[in-house]
Amino acid sequence: MQAQSVLHSGYFHPVLRSWQTSATAFDASNLIYPIFVTDSPDAVEPIASLPGQARYGVNKLEGMLRPLVDEGLKCVLIFGVPTKVRKDERGSAADAENTPAIQAIKKICSSFPELLIACDVCLCPYTSHGHCETLRCPNLHSETDDVTSFPQAPAAWPCELCPCLPRDPRACRGHEPSSAPLTQLAMARVCQSHRADRDVREGADMLMVKPGMPYLDLVRDVKAKHPTHPLAVYHVSGEFAMLWHGAQAGAFSLKTAVMEVMTGFRRAAPEVAEGGTGVKRLSEDNTQ
Amino acid sequence: MQAQSVLHSGYFHPVLRSWQTSATAFDASNLIYPIFVTDSPDAVEPIASLPGQARYGVNKLEGMLRPLVDEGLKCVLIFGVPTKVRKDERGSAADAENTPAIQAIKKICSSFPELLIACDVCLCPYTSHGHCETLRCPNLHSETDDVTSFPQAPAAWPCELCPCLPRDPRACRGHEPSSAPLTQLAMARVCQSHRADRDVREGADMLMVKPGMPYLDLVRDVKAKHPTHPLAVYHVSGEFAMLWHGAQAGAFSLKTAVMEVMTGFRRAAPEVAEGGTGVKRLSEDNTQ
Amino acid sequence: MQAQSVLHSGYFHPVLRSWQTSATAFDASNLIYPIFVTDSPDAVEPIASLPGQARYGVNKLEGMLRPLVDEGLKCVLIFGVPTKVRKDERGSAADAENTPAIQAIKKICSSFPELLIACDVCLCPYTSHGHCETLRCPNLHSETDDVTSFPQAPAAWPCELCPCLPRDPRACRGHEPSSAPLTQLAMARVCQSHRADRDVREGADMLMVKPGMPYLDLVRDVKAKHPTHPLAVYHVSGEFAMLWHGAQAGAFSLKTAVMEVMTGFRRAAPEVAEGGTGVKRLSEDNTQ
Amino acid sequence: MQAQSVLHSGYFHPVLRSWQTSATAFDASNLIYPIFVTDSPDAVEPIASLPGQARYGVNKLEGMLRPLVDEGLKCVLIFGVPTKVRKDERGSAADAENTPAIQAIKKICSSFPELLIACDVCLCPYTSHGHCETLRCPNLHSETDDVTSFPQAPAAWPCELCPCLPRDPRACRGHEPSSAPLTQLAMARVCQSHRADRDVREGADMLMVKPGMPYLDLVRDVKAKHPTHPLAVYHVSGEFAMLWHGAQAGAFSLKTAVMEVMTGFRRAAPEVAEGGTGVKRLSEDNTQ
Amino acid sequence: MQAQSVLHSGYFHPVLRSWQTSATAFDASNLIYPIFVTDSPDAVEPIASLPGQARYGVNKLEGMLRPLVDEGLKCVLIFGVPTKVRKDERGSAADAENTPAIQAIKKICSSFPELLIACDVCLCPYTSHGHCETLRCPNLHSETDDVTSFPQAPAAWPCELCPCLPRDPRACRGHEPSSAPLTQLAMARVCQSHRADRDVREGADMLMVKPGMPYLDLVRDVKAKHPTHPLAVYHVSGEFAMLWHGAQAGAFSLKTAVMEVMTGFRRAAPEVAEGGTGVKRLSEDNTQ
Amino acid sequence: MQAQSVLHSGYFHPVLRSWQTSATAFDASNLIYPIFVTDSPDAVEPIASLPGQARYGVNKLEGMLRPLVDEGLKCVLIFGVPTKVRKDERGSAADAENTPAIQAIKKICSSFPELLIACDVCLCPYTSHGHCETLRCPNLHSETDDVTSFPQAPAAWPCELCPCLPRDPRACRGHEPSSAPLTQLAMARVCQSHRADRDVREGADMLMVKPGMPYLDLVRDVKAKHPTHPLAVYHVSGEFAMLWHGAQAGAFSLKTAVMEVMTGFRRAAPEVAEGGTGVKRLSEDNTQ
Ligand SMILES: [Zn+2]
Ligand SMILES: [Zn+2]
Ligand SMILES: [Zn+2]
Ligand SMILES: [Zn+2]
Ligand SMILES: [Zn+2]
Ligand SMILES: [Zn+2]
Repeated sequence: MQAQSVLHSGYFHPVLRSWQTSATAFDASNLIYPIFVTDSPDAVEPIASLPGQARYGVNKLEGMLRPLVDEGLKCVLIFGVPTKVRKDERGSAADAENTPAIQAIKKICSSFPELLIACDVCLCPYTSHGHCETLRCPNLHSETDDVTSFPQAPAAWPCELCPCLPRDPRACRGHEPSSAPLTQLAMARVCQSHRADRDVREGADMLMVKPGMPYLDLVRDVKAKHPTHPLAVYHVSGEFAMLWHGAQAGAFSLKTAVMEVMTGFRRAAPEVAEGGTGVKRLSEDNTQ
Repeated sequence: MQAQSVLHSGYFHPVLRSWQTSATAFDASNLIYPIFVTDSPDAVEPIASLPGQARYGVNKLEGMLRPLVDEGLKCVLIFGVPTKVRKDERGSAADAENTPAIQAIKKICSSFPELLIACDVCLCPYTSHGHCETLRCPNLHSETDDVTSFPQAPAAWPCELCPCLPRDPRACRGHEPSSAPLTQLAMARVCQSHRADRDVREGADMLMVKPGMPYLDLVRDVKAKHPTHPLAVYHVSGEFAMLWHGAQAGAFSLKTAVMEVMTGFRRAAPEVAEGGTGVKRLSEDNTQ
Repeated sequence: MQAQSVLHSGYFHPVLRSWQTSATAFDASNLIYPIFVTDSPDAVEPIASLPGQARYGVNKLEGMLRPLVDEGLKCVLIFGVPTKVRKDERGSAADAENTPAIQAIKKICSSFPELLIACDVCLCPYTSHGHCETLRCPNLHSETDDVTSFPQAPAAWPCELCPCLPRDPRACRGHEPSSAPLTQLAMARVCQSHRADRDVREGADMLMVKPGMPYLDLVRDVKAKHPTHPLAVYHVSGEFAMLWHGAQAGAFSLKTAVMEVMTGFRRAAPEVAEGGTGVKRLSEDNTQ
Repeated sequence: MQAQSVLHSGYFHPVLRSWQTSATAFDASNLIYPIFVTDSPDAVEPIASLPGQARYGVNKLEGMLRPLVDEGLKCVLIFGVPTKVRKDERGSAADAENTPAIQAIKKICSSFPELLIACDVCLCPYTSHGHCETLRCPNLHSETDDVTSFPQAPAAWPCELCPCLPRDPRACRGHEPSSAPLTQLAMARVCQSHRADRDVREGADMLMVKPGMPYLDLVRDVKAKHPTHPLAVYHVSGEFAMLWHGAQAGAFSLKTAVMEVMTGFRRAAPEVAEGGTGVKRLSEDNTQ
Repeated sequence: MQAQSVLHSGYFHPVLRSWQTSATAFDASNLIYPIFVTDSPDAVEPIASLPGQARYGVNKLEGMLRPLVDEGLKCVLIFGVPTKVRKDERGSAADAENTPAIQAIKKICSSFPELLIACDVCLCPYTSHGHCETLRCPNLHSETDDVTSFPQAPAAWPCELCPCLPRDPRACRGHEPSSAPLTQLAMARVCQSHRADRDVREGADMLMVKPGMPYLDLVRDVKAKHPTHPLAVYHVSGEFAMLWHGAQAGAFSLKTAVMEVMTGFRRAAPEVAEGGTGVKRLSEDNTQ
Repeated sequence: MQAQSVLHSGYFHPVLRSWQTSATAFDASNLIYPIFVTDSPDAVEPIASLPGQARYGVNKLEGMLRPLVDEGLKCVLIFGVPTKVRKDERGSAADAENTPAIQAIKKICSSFPELLIACDVCLCPYTSHGHCETLRCPNLHSETDDVTSFPQAPAAWPCELCPCLPRDPRACRGHEPSSAPLTQLAMARVCQSHRADRDVREGADMLMVKPGMPYLDLVRDVKAKHPTHPLAVYHVSGEFAMLWHGAQAGAFSLKTAVMEVMTGFRRAAPEVAEGGTGVKRLSEDNTQ
């Protein structure tokens, strides 16, 4: 049985290990930074539930992003957080000139022309009825859409709970941390699969799975089925809360845990992970 | 594009959903209950870091297990926690008559003859040098063995950190929550794959991946490669800490999060998940 | 070579076996009962070639179905067998109010609101030209469509031979047991694959392969390609004939053979098998 | 939706069809002819349950095989049917000079040097205890070994029921058509997979699945896992009985059904199918 | 370790080898012959860079093809090489009656009705602007389309460099052997995958990968994803140049190398390879 | 059909392309440099058939390797080319102190301790009978071992034609460019698969496929089956000849073709390619 127990064949030497870990390596270019844009142009409003993160006004974006881009950030994802918008039936404000998200896109595009800019397209914050279901994504609102119980956003901004992205396994309807029925959780695989297929058919430039850590098997599935589309993993606020509070309680080191989770994201999905935590952490590592 | 957007085809009706979720359903028969057996026969020693869990003396096992078995528990995993054992070079006490683990096996086998009994085979608690590397598992102790930073056990019992199971992606050496170098984390996939292959060659009756949640993609990989061996996922103490402290801080409901994690385990690995948290939770659900 | 010969590792104990066989287990909820509805409301017409099966009038449906539903049946598939319908060029009678299939759907929906109701959509029985090819399924009628020589229906009801379901590997054209050219049989894999893909694109709620037993490899293929759609296997009348006549001749036990075939269906396709034989057999088992 | 319904793209033209069906084509070179050799050198004893098949004495082999080889047969499988052998504890007669199987191998090797000769290695007919379990294949005899209820042999020759081939999903113990418990059927996939893996490790030149038709999904699985080993499918006597009696009762044409089944074997397993029925049928086709 | 080293199990005997190599075998029916049709009806113009190949006028097609068809050729691919065509904005001449390609199709269809005729649909030779991008294939012309540096055509006919087939990993733009930037080569897998998917959706009867030899891994990928569509490999002129000049320099035998490459094409893609070299070579083999 | 034709979704932007091409990128760390070591310590003997390559004496190794290591080379493969060695029956000189290969290993290990050193283990150059078949690799010498007709070495050094590495799809027997029978080429897939499996069982640290370009589909296969072992592709001398002579004849640019081939190697096999051509080319690129 001797030869059968050579566990380390293939990775006993640093060069062998480096060949086998290239797909797991990551740096700033493998991260997407989510930006919550408020309609107070000069605002920097800390998000209570995401320590170290804030909502920014359009005038603060360049200053906030410059050091991250200098360190290698290649992509941002913009969430509009309008507070003064005039809502109507069809959510007209979503692509109005003065909407924070639109202004942020123009500003970033001008300041950092090489950045890839992604944008949340949920209409809920812009509709008088608070839903986008009659508009862009009618299929997203059945009872089976809520598939996770991990909150995805700070309570201060209701619609972060309502991402409405086609590739999002959560629905738009619930705006507060909800307790998903077990049946819905059990459908996560089916739900995620059908949405990824639809996104590919519709010409999506990137696929996304969120939350990330409790669904790494689905991340693997989506990559296996769509290997020639970039795949991102969104590290939601509920996941951050787990790591943050566990570390605060002394159960483990926050930095170590974040690195393990980010490494796992890369291991499951070759290209890119998204979430403020990881980006900030890399940034702090470099500046310390 | 209408027909292409029929996301809910295949699961709009409860019967269609039930057909698609059978592989994700779980009850007590899909859980393994880990038992930490001390050598004080009448002891019930709460484990500080695992609220609701305790180390038990052999005389307390039947009383503790009876209600769980009545609810459908089919399998336990025994960890010996010897404190009075005479250690020697080769860990002779590990299979001595009076060792807590051996006594527990006999007791449970007699009281619950239908239960499937698994047992930790780490020799570290029984060796004078505190390692089992020169004995059973010499290959486990290279620098690349520690692949996770999530602690797997309460500090009071050092060797829960040292499971030494061949299917364990952690090594025996470190006995306290350690900070795994990034290189080691990056090798987790290679490491896990080689060990599962070895276990199958050696005639293992069950494969196990631990920790669970940060490695669900590896759970999927192991099942894909070895579909005709039962696969278990071990929910380690560090994972429990994340959920517990996150829930204590109000980030989410503990019960909901546990159910989501357990559902995810079943979604990724068809047969069985292991961990006191899930078992206790199911039990409490039934008794309330 | 000892360790290499441990064939039974992974299933030596009943609990290990139960973990590994959950995907093969089946009960009434994994069966679909096909119902042939005649337009004589009170008729119960035995089908000569399917011993134990009959065509029913709409008034007889509730009485016939009640005991099956009580035992756990969750789904039926309705085939209209009109004899008095006024045929025209476009098969208008197919969805007329007084068509047996439509009346049966309404009746069952009212009596058993929780049942999932599927319905054959072949237009052949309703068209003056006896084909549905110029209407719903023009692509089905090339020379390569007939891919099996196992008859699928009693001669008394011609269009059971003409299911016309998009997921049916047989064409509509032949209405009597035909002898398919070998070329057609050889195309079964290609044919089945293209149809399943089309059904998914069109929003099908369930995929179906028929006949079942001689095509279990295709069942496996379809499930592998479309894992998030329920998959059914239709046990056609020709398959039933094989089992029935073999058992009558004393070659094997009918019940045992049916159970082996049904177990094989579940082994190849996780969700559901269809056919009167299996349902009746389960029912008789319970009532005896 | 027009373009999405082009079912026949890829096979509308005979040349396109021929390209896609080469893997399903078969002729005499894709068949193995099983030969039951009795120890009466000049005997030709018809097998009641296999119309058209007989047990042959060694002097009759060349005359029987010559026309089949002339038509392209490339491989035979020899089963010894000793009636006068002296049995002992270890089955010494199995490889004795005067054993029918050994004599047949020598005769065929001399008359048809280009033929590939396979041989059943079951010891049961040669042991005083009627089992081979203590000898060659100790692992085959647990309660889970009988996985099918389709009889595999004529009652006149008990050990065709006891093939004992390592790649055989049946055990040696039962010598008459038995009714396999459902649990055993449910383990067929696990059982078949472990045995095929073992055969490959032991240097097998060919893998075999039997029975064939009710296990085509397993045929597909074995080929997928071991694509570089020839794979055979054994069409057992129980399968023949289904086709024969179904055809006798007028349910379908025997020849057509045999061709459909053989085509299905080739579709699921690229190389070779085994069974007297197919060989005889091809032969008759050519001579008529 | 003995049994583990049985490399030749499964292929030690000629019959075992023949079973395992059927998918690699090829003859004239597995080849497509490309025909370059000029608009001088009686022309036979040798192509300097493809020794042994020529452009033919429509009157010369039957004489040239007859011996190849007699040897078993089943399919041709027609490239129009118009020199006198009147070009306009939309390439109207492409399907005009007197266009060489159209005339060739009619001629071949009439002379060899059983042949499968494929045709290049690039519009570049017929447009006044020399591109087909604004017409049929607008998506083909981004900077990432040129993915190979192996020239695909003789310099005399610029548009062989511009195949424009949707399944072609090259773009239309460059008309002379170009040096593709490394980034473009690196995108070959993504590019090829998206195009094959599109072709299937659009109802393509055959998929094609070109060049062949440097992209055999992509050939394997396309076949794995679309197993029920015929797949062809185009052996481009640059590949021919490698073999021709290497053989001329004495590095290896041309015939041997061509056979190895063609065998490799069949090994990677089950159905068909295309290229004048292989067809001519087979033809010469038979006539010598 | 508009949305279905979005070929460039997923790679229209440079950042999207960079995410998708990381697995295809390569630099010096992805190359292995083969070194032919002669037993004249100060020799630098140009290899006629490999322009730019030479055989080196042990004293010349450091000077030759230094600039390559400075540019990032991480691994070398040593081939001994003994001319003065005393041959005997068992090839004792292979691991003698004064054998060139052994001396080279020691020298390189001392001069470049961080390099990973691989070594050819063929015994042929050291045996009096000129074969290693009776010694290390008895299974390699059947008639099916020669699977390629591309010469792998300069005629001046016979045993480069006789690599004998277990992962080598060629046999040891033929020492000059041979013309492999077609049957042997057709077995390449089976042969390569069995050898890679054996290497993994024996604890190999790296797998290798050679030649590379005509077998990229097998490279893909080996990586798919053994994803957690580093995989190398050997670019043999015959492949170099194709590129060199094609470029010399003006068919394409040598540099461009080498880069396309190396990119293809990385695309098919994630870790490493081997061959002097690529290494030298990278080096020249950097120094020019
Ligand atoms: Zn929304
Ligand atoms: Zn230990
Ligand atoms: Zn019809
Ligand atoms: Zn036996
Ligand atoms: Zn063009
Ligand atoms: Zn050698």
